[in-house]
Amino acid sequence: MTDLYEAMSTLRAVRRLRPDPIPAEVLERVLQAACWAPTGGNMQPWRVIVVRSDERKAKLQAVYEPEWQNYTAANRARLEQAPLGADRDKLARTLAAGDHLAANLAQAPVILMFCANPKFMAITDAHLDRISMVGGGSVYTAVQNTMLACREEGLGCTLTTLHCIQESKVLEALEIPEGWATLAMVPIGYPVGRGHGSITRQPPSALAFDDAFGVPWT
Amino acid sequence: MTDLYEAMSTLRAVRRLRPDPIPAEVLERVLQAACWAPTGGNMQPWRVIVVRSDERKAKLQAVYEPEWQNYTAANRARLEQAPLGADRDKLARTLAAGDHLAANLAQAPVILMFCANPKFMAITDAHLDRISMVGGGSVYTAVQNTMLACREEGLGCTLTTLHCIQESKVLEALEIPEGWATLAMVPIGYPVGRGHGSITRQPPSALAFDDAFGVPWT
Repeated sequence: MTDLYEAMSTLRAVRRLRPDPIPAEVLERVLQAACWAPTGGNMQPWRVIVVRSDERKAKLQAVYEPEWQNYTAANRARLEQAPLGADRDKLARTLAAGDHLAANLAQAPVILMFCANPKFMAITDAHLDRISMVGGGSVYTAVQNTMLACREEGLGCTLTTLHCIQESKVLEALEIPEGWATLAMVPIGYPVGRGHGSITRQPPSALAFDDAFGVPWT
Repeated sequence: MTDLYEAMSTLRAVRRLRPDPIPAEVLERVLQAACWAPTGGNMQPWRVIVVRSDERKAKLQAVYEPEWQNYTAANRARLEQAPLGADRDKLARTLAAGDHLAANLAQAPVILMFCANPKFMAITDAHLDRISMVGGGSVYTAVQNTMLACREEGLGCTLTTLHCIQESKVLEALEIPEGWATLAMVPIGYPVGRGHGSITRQPPSALAFDDAFGVPWT
């Protein structure tokens, strides 16, 4: 087994997936990892749909692909005007990988759709004069466990949320009943290329503060 | 190092923490784990305040303790009327541990306060006719990594969000500027008792569905 820190530090978005099936016992371990995650009041208010049929995967792609094109339109314009160099190359590679995923989503062997019902959550920021985000606290812990388990099992994956823009179509495609929301779509499969590996992240000195906001952590 | 699945399957809420200080290199590894988490567009729109001063920890306790009492009032009433037995004992133990945390929050050596700014996020469910939850997707991945790292380092921890009910007081106490929200408060420290260990969770057969919502996963 990979150790914990190695798994975390090499968990990258893998967007080129082979259509090869995932053995049942591997998938079961990934789902078990999701189930271990903590949730508010241990309510486990989420469910995950393991989407495997060609028909339903195609419906998800029909939602996702145009939203990906919309979402990345500005990046594409920026790319055309960017000077040649490493930044441009990186942006171009990321866009190409995302384009590949959008055009081939239905070929992923499995698409995990995480749903949750806010009725089973105490959403403590629901009354505030800002957008609520706390509901995610009982779902994305499970999503992160899922992705770390994929890393462990050699499965590529990436967390996407663009499908929410057309959530009603997703609810219909997967027969999700009223009251349930969709929070994450995670296509998984064995990688075409090397899969997981090095990641680019800001370090604690950039993201942590000492005792009060804005005080550098050194 | 603990392997990934062992860490996940023994990550429990640890609410009795010793005041002993956390060595700098241990804390740094925990913060590094947070930084490795994936976020939408790799924007890393969150920051974490490492609250260590007695003054600010006391202010957080002054917010948290009454909210904990409010939140658990119904459970307390239920407990008084519950028949003697294992369920009652478990509820009583959980309440007692939570009471201990609420009454001793300021004695934890470190309280991590995770903040995020929705301006740096594409919140794809913001327009829907339901409460938004997707903003949490770029924050609770980091919170889960943090807690798994605590497990790895032998530090107790638990994810709490009750402080959000009085968020304005938290913003003031930690000098958090306008535009930033607080999503998770994670007190950490070495455990009084055995710390992490067995957890009670529903299995994949209860939480996963096969291809469509409600179809049992077997």
